[in-house]
Amino acid sequence: MEIAAFQQLMRDLYLENDKRRGNTATALWLVEEVGELAEAIRRDDRENIREELADCFAWIGALANLYGIDLEEAFKEKYPQSCPTCGRNPCICTD
Amino acid sequence: MEIAAFQQLMRDLYLENDKRRGNTATALWLVEEVGELAEAIRRDDRENIREELADCFAWIGALANLYGIDLEEAFKEKYPQSCPTCGRNPCICTD
Repeated sequence: MEIAAFQQLMRDLYLENDKRRGNTATALWLVEEVGELAEAIRRDDRENIREELADCFAWIGALANLYGIDLEEAFKEKYPQSCPTCGRNPCICTD
Repeated sequence: MEIAAFQQLMRDLYLENDKRRGNTATALWLVEEVGELAEAIRRDDRENIREELADCFAWIGALANLYGIDLEEAFKEKYPQSCPTCGRNPCICTD
């Protein structure tokens, strides 16, 4: 699946609802899902980690749609086949 | 760009470093980036929102790689062309 097709599916499913809810309330949904992911990681619950990662991924797509941002473009701009911090591939940063 | 190609690029760039750092410390990186995204949204700084969304997207890819999770598969499983909560497309949930 292309990243653009993922964003289009999220647009079809959720954009009207996301607009109604608003940008800041939608951002809180992402924060909530990241909290659930953190819990799944703390418990090392692999099946739940899988589901929560899917949810976080989805809410990032929803936020990108609300702001009219092309995720693939934004990603490629920041990560042009090398680490934006050390400039290397693979990354040699130590943090 | 395919979601799988995005995950492969993240694997090439960061997997060794992510393994060295460990799962829980890598999860904290995602939390940090979501905090930066929250700040950008609060300030309504569109250029920064774009960059922070790219970072959150990247760290979700990194975590998926650490846990051997195929993000596309996980997403499709949770969001099979309809909302997992109301079962509709478009979603009619009210929260």
